[in-house]
Amino acid sequence: MATNRRILLSEIPTGKLTEEHFTQDEVELTSPGDGEVLVRTLILSQDAANRAWMQGATYRSALSSGQVMSSGGIAEVVESNVDRFKVGQIVSGDLGWQEYAVIPGHQLTPVKDHDGPLSHSLSLLGVAGLTAYHGLINVPGIHAGEVLLVSAAGGSVGSIVGQIGRIKGAKVIGIAGGTEKCRWVVDELGFDACLDYKDTSAPLRHQLAAVAPDGVDVYFDNTGGDILQTALFAMKMKGRVSCCGAVSMYDGKPSAGPFGVPGLLVTKRLRMEGFIVSDYRDRDNDAYHDLSMWAKQGELKVVEDIIDGLENAPRGLIGLLAGENRGKRMIRVGEPGS
Amino acid sequence: MATNRRILLSEIPTGKLTEEHFTQDEVELTSPGDGEVLVRTLILSQDAANRAWMQGATYRSALSSGQVMSSGGIAEVVESNVDRFKVGQIVSGDLGWQEYAVIPGHQLTPVKDHDGPLSHSLSLLGVAGLTAYHGLINVPGIHAGEVLLVSAAGGSVGSIVGQIGRIKGAKVIGIAGGTEKCRWVVDELGFDACLDYKDTSAPLRHQLAAVAPDGVDVYFDNTGGDILQTALFAMKMKGRVSCCGAVSMYDGKPSAGPFGVPGLLVTKRLRMEGFIVSDYRDRDNDAYHDLSMWAKQGELKVVEDIIDGLENAPRGLIGLLAGENRGKRMIRVGEPGS
Repeated sequence: MATNRRILLSEIPTGKLTEEHFTQDEVELTSPGDGEVLVRTLILSQDAANRAWMQGATYRSALSSGQVMSSGGIAEVVESNVDRFKVGQIVSGDLGWQEYAVIPGHQLTPVKDHDGPLSHSLSLLGVAGLTAYHGLINVPGIHAGEVLLVSAAGGSVGSIVGQIGRIKGAKVIGIAGGTEKCRWVVDELGFDACLDYKDTSAPLRHQLAAVAPDGVDVYFDNTGGDILQTALFAMKMKGRVSCCGAVSMYDGKPSAGPFGVPGLLVTKRLRMEGFIVSDYRDRDNDAYHDLSMWAKQGELKVVEDIIDGLENAPRGLIGLLAGENRGKRMIRVGEPGS
Repeated sequence: MATNRRILLSEIPTGKLTEEHFTQDEVELTSPGDGEVLVRTLILSQDAANRAWMQGATYRSALSSGQVMSSGGIAEVVESNVDRFKVGQIVSGDLGWQEYAVIPGHQLTPVKDHDGPLSHSLSLLGVAGLTAYHGLINVPGIHAGEVLLVSAAGGSVGSIVGQIGRIKGAKVIGIAGGTEKCRWVVDELGFDACLDYKDTSAPLRHQLAAVAPDGVDVYFDNTGGDILQTALFAMKMKGRVSCCGAVSMYDGKPSAGPFGVPGLLVTKRLRMEGFIVSDYRDRDNDAYHDLSMWAKQGELKVVEDIIDGLENAPRGLIGLLAGENRGKRMIRVGEPGS
């Protein structure tokens, strides 16, 4: 009898997320019913948003304790009661942290063929790449010669945002934690500069003033909190802020917003705009086209941070929230065709 | 020998503004030099922004202690060393709280002829009207059937914003302080509803949920602070927030921004945008045209709150910051041609 290993969110965190909030179990594999598909997990996506889902309803309903931890991912069809899905086909969907999942067909999407490895469907051509593309190109826009500031610059989204900015001719400044990571952002990803928000010898605003003395045209915010605060004060007149997420706010209690909202917005005529990736679904083809092209040309490096083993999903997510990943973090659970 | 009565900002307030921050004096009238014009003050504009200027550099440099209190206004030319300004002509500029001013010609603007009383140049066709028009039409836009929320609804800008919204077919909800003022906003200005933020028996968010159960499409923010906070939580998906000012924040110490920035902006895909009226100078003719037309048709009521006497300027501004005005507050200092 086949079994399914799963990781449950056994307790909703009220403060920092720890491994104690999760438990692992093993249950009998169930068969798909009418309109359902049984899939085998290959790779799970890890995203800061996973933590936000635990805090309450966002763009999706909140998670509840005792359920399998939710997670997007890529899987192979094992058994299908839906005509358009065939055994062996590669699909994506909300699989959860488990080896197998039974999912209604309408909640699954066929994964497009592409040149790179399968994992690119979750990184460059997945939510990370699309978020970076739409959140920069279709929200604030970016123009040659502008100064682009990106927080969480070494992360899945930030690493791509900054590279797109560079390709578009902007001066790109990243923000990341730690000397070594900052050096990597500059050397590997080709940012013009990367500021270390953990550097206690130089406040972030001084570091920023040194590399962008005339201010920032576009700030791509992945963090919220103090970093957003610093960025708002450094914006040029008519600057644009793309609000992608607030990773600094997810893992703990919500706190008040930045000083200067709305005062700074008026004085500097700033525009702050939130978005989520699905708002721009009708332009996904632009993103697939441009991102693939840039990767093929070697202009855009796809940085992946893959951890092996379902059992490492909790540790992986906790580390992600602490900023330890470089590029897109994923959990490899199985190999296709095995 | 002619003299000039002036009111000085003798001390920069660190907390609430009081009459003790001002002193009055009387000095000899000086003659205009080359390129300068001597004008006699007719009407002074009173604006919440006057208080913001005391806090530091905004879109203009900060005020300093000992200077004549700054204020826009309308004046008559008494003596001119500038060809394009003739004695008796009506002009506008930063006159300050004084009976006479000597001002470089390039800092004065001829006041356009219009049908209504002179004061309309500071209300309907002045900064108040233009701010309302541009800040609604050219920042978030407003469409028939949308729900428009306006704070400081009885004020110079809010009273016009709500009426434009009504003319454009929106459902218009005001926020103001006090039962009587709220009734006036509905009965006199034709808002669909007006919520009393001072009503301790019903929190603002409950009052708002009762009249806008599906949420708010456009929020025109004149106040910042707790009211902005409440509005953000009540926005519909893809809602737009026009940040016009933050009167609640001017008269005291700056405080942290609203909770939920940037989290709510992402979740609801909100856009918050600050502006100042001069950003849209190239569209001022649209505003003059539409506002004059609506006033003539009786669709838009011009509400003016004129106080007589220069000596009442401090009291007038302090009262304005406490929200006691209805419509555009001005100080009448002199009569034309007298």
